[in-house]
Amino acid sequence: MLDTLIHNATVVTVDEAFTILRNGAVGVRQGIVEKVEVLPADQPLPPARETIDARGDIVMPGLINAHTHLPMALFRGLADDLPLMTWLNDHIFPAEARHIGPVSVALGARLACAEMLLGGITTCCDGYFLTAHFAEAVVQTGLRAVLGQGVIDFPAPGVPDPTQNVAVAKAFVERWQGRAALASPSIFCHSPYTCSAVTLTAAKQAAIDLGALFQIHVAETRAEREQMEKTHGCSPIAYLDRLGLLDANSLLVHAVWVDAADIERIARSGACIAHCPESNMKLASGVAPLPDFLAAGIPVGLGTDGCASNNDLDLWGEMDMAAKLHKVQRLDPTAMKAEQVVRMATRDGAQAVGLGHMIGSLEAGKRADLIVIDTHQPHWTPLYHPASHLVYVARANDVRHVMIDGRWVVRDRSLLTMDVPAVMQEVNGWRVKR
Amino acid sequence: MLDTLIHNATVVTVDEAFTILRNGAVGVRQGIVEKVEVLPADQPLPPARETIDARGDIVMPGLINAHTHLPMALFRGLADDLPLMTWLNDHIFPAEARHIGPVSVALGARLACAEMLLGGITTCCDGYFLTAHFAEAVVQTGLRAVLGQGVIDFPAPGVPDPTQNVAVAKAFVERWQGRAALASPSIFCHSPYTCSAVTLTAAKQAAIDLGALFQIHVAETRAEREQMEKTHGCSPIAYLDRLGLLDANSLLVHAVWVDAADIERIARSGACIAHCPESNMKLASGVAPLPDFLAAGIPVGLGTDGCASNNDLDLWGEMDMAAKLHKVQRLDPTAMKAEQVVRMATRDGAQAVGLGHMIGSLEAGKRADLIVIDTHQPHWTPLYHPASHLVYVARANDVRHVMIDGRWVVRDRSLLTMDVPAVMQEVNGWRVKR
Repeated sequence: MLDTLIHNATVVTVDEAFTILRNGAVGVRQGIVEKVEVLPADQPLPPARETIDARGDIVMPGLINAHTHLPMALFRGLADDLPLMTWLNDHIFPAEARHIGPVSVALGARLACAEMLLGGITTCCDGYFLTAHFAEAVVQTGLRAVLGQGVIDFPAPGVPDPTQNVAVAKAFVERWQGRAALASPSIFCHSPYTCSAVTLTAAKQAAIDLGALFQIHVAETRAEREQMEKTHGCSPIAYLDRLGLLDANSLLVHAVWVDAADIERIARSGACIAHCPESNMKLASGVAPLPDFLAAGIPVGLGTDGCASNNDLDLWGEMDMAAKLHKVQRLDPTAMKAEQVVRMATRDGAQAVGLGHMIGSLEAGKRADLIVIDTHQPHWTPLYHPASHLVYVARANDVRHVMIDGRWVVRDRSLLTMDVPAVMQEVNGWRVKR
Repeated sequence: MLDTLIHNATVVTVDEAFTILRNGAVGVRQGIVEKVEVLPADQPLPPARETIDARGDIVMPGLINAHTHLPMALFRGLADDLPLMTWLNDHIFPAEARHIGPVSVALGARLACAEMLLGGITTCCDGYFLTAHFAEAVVQTGLRAVLGQGVIDFPAPGVPDPTQNVAVAKAFVERWQGRAALASPSIFCHSPYTCSAVTLTAAKQAAIDLGALFQIHVAETRAEREQMEKTHGCSPIAYLDRLGLLDANSLLVHAVWVDAADIERIARSGACIAHCPESNMKLASGVAPLPDFLAAGIPVGLGTDGCASNNDLDLWGEMDMAAKLHKVQRLDPTAMKAEQVVRMATRDGAQAVGLGHMIGSLEAGKRADLIVIDTHQPHWTPLYHPASHLVYVARANDVRHVMIDGRWVVRDRSLLTMDVPAVMQEVNGWRVKR
């Protein structure tokens, strides 16, 4: 007996062959996808505790947001359209120093999770500080998350003494490993220019020892690349490679200012990339050579980055942007086909954040993280090719239902795990008190 | 006595000074904005037939979609990610030849209008063929529209004999001038490479004689520019200038492959531009020098282009894209500030399509085309700067109410002027019969 059967659906499985089943069904039992199939029209439906007629809607794996800073949802739109250093030094850093603490990080994380869940994101990969203070809040929302405790060689929220940065991250990972099915603890080094070689290698070693994902911002801006070349005589990626930080358990965030040799280094190492097109565009960082990453076989996920720099947590926007940005940059309309982009937002993203064995596609045996998309709307009509509409017309609000680990988290566009108006009210109150 | 009073709103007026009124109110009478003001808190509300408490939501002018091909909504997502000539010759042109006729254009236009109205677009500027066969359908939806009859030197839908192309366009304008308050007829030349110099000058003369907007696709692709240079020894813009086609009543669509001298020609002439970033990106046409247009004082509106090339009619996406694309292209995060983008989507767009005297801002005396945006959602929280959220977080579905010419067209996200499910069903039936 199934727990849930969703039938009469267009199932975009995102399996290896990108199989799409018209009139397909997905059966879920004990949190796991048990079957994905076309049911014979002349036979009764298989028995299930709950049967949902999807009325022709699309069922697909939940989206993977491969790079976030959840608590920064509190700073959404605080300051925009400014030179990078003005934005950071006069707005973001002071706001963090004044307002980020053990209570506010949990509030910001709840707000961020609400937005993501309502928009069909079922997993995020986060990096921030005071992670121990919001991990529980994230788990309670029902979102699956890789949660990285930040490491930086400056005093940071929760880590006033930078000599303790790796120790704090290790303690966080040890405390959270195996604690909650939905949470995977991780170590997040801020960048190669804000962490010393000693810090970077110690943090990576801790991640290896603990079997945790190692995340790092790298090669985001031209200034970073120039500084690394001046200081270390090589590119940021070459520097990480030299320190032994690149392997299949490393997630490289941004990777904008990379050359052909860097791409070869990444591909050889098995490291993955989180591509954040909207953040890179809005902060004017540059355009990452995404088509070259894919040609080199590097697994690439899509990330929104934090709300201070994007300003939302909408992976549909990132998909649309990723498809269009690289076409125009190369003056090649065949760059970044829609299917490829859907893969990045699901299957490849899951691999990039270290969860490819569990999630990222609708295949028997994987955890049941899935979303149902309302296709009965003017902007979805007509519907010739599902992958095309998922990339070029879908919007966050088109997500009707969201299931994570076999549990409904969103039904009929309502979040079941949180009092959303109360959280918004609390954020607005917090805002006013600034 | 007002017809409608909307109070307790954040009113983004988009007047010349970009005034934003907190706790503002908008009063409408006989289709006209009568007052936009902050009401004294200690006095009763002014009398009105209908009083709406906006609960802190944003009220702003309706969006202007400065370039569409409405009937092409039928070809939404028909073919994507292909080389331009394959896409056109193997998919779009055959589909048009086989499927575009007097009935289907009206169906496609209704679908397009439904999507636009639900997404807060109150005016579009269209160019297509068989315009006489869908103008009435557009008017019936309650949308305000500039409707351009297409002119091209090839057999086209409804104009099998190209020698009649300008005559057909003239007849359309003559028939529709003064016929419906919401419809302004126009003449739309397809491009300088598909219309001869004789056709172009005759069409422009007709537009001048009739006082109608003259629209033309120009300088869209590198291939077009190269062909014009080879054939006419100058850029596409210089060619139009030489023919006397540039004046304040000319709307230049795309204008991607333009140089400094072209920009000076456009600025000098008073001609306006419809910038279509998503279409230019998806078709890999290139990046128009938008910041240079604005620096030169050229009025620029934002357009979605047709659904075959975008693939939706979502001006919020265009706003986000316009803001981010030019930042990354110039590696300058201060390029295209949010306020500037909101202006393009409203005030400047209205001017570009020849309706700046009537619409585009909420100021006393203008026609009452306005939208109410639901800000009580996680992705809008917190809300520091309205213009920033309108560009970087707003989505089509955030539009709660839409008023055009003083009449409610959308209330609580429902379209009042059309049976939307019936139209979608008809489109789907049409689709299946292909």
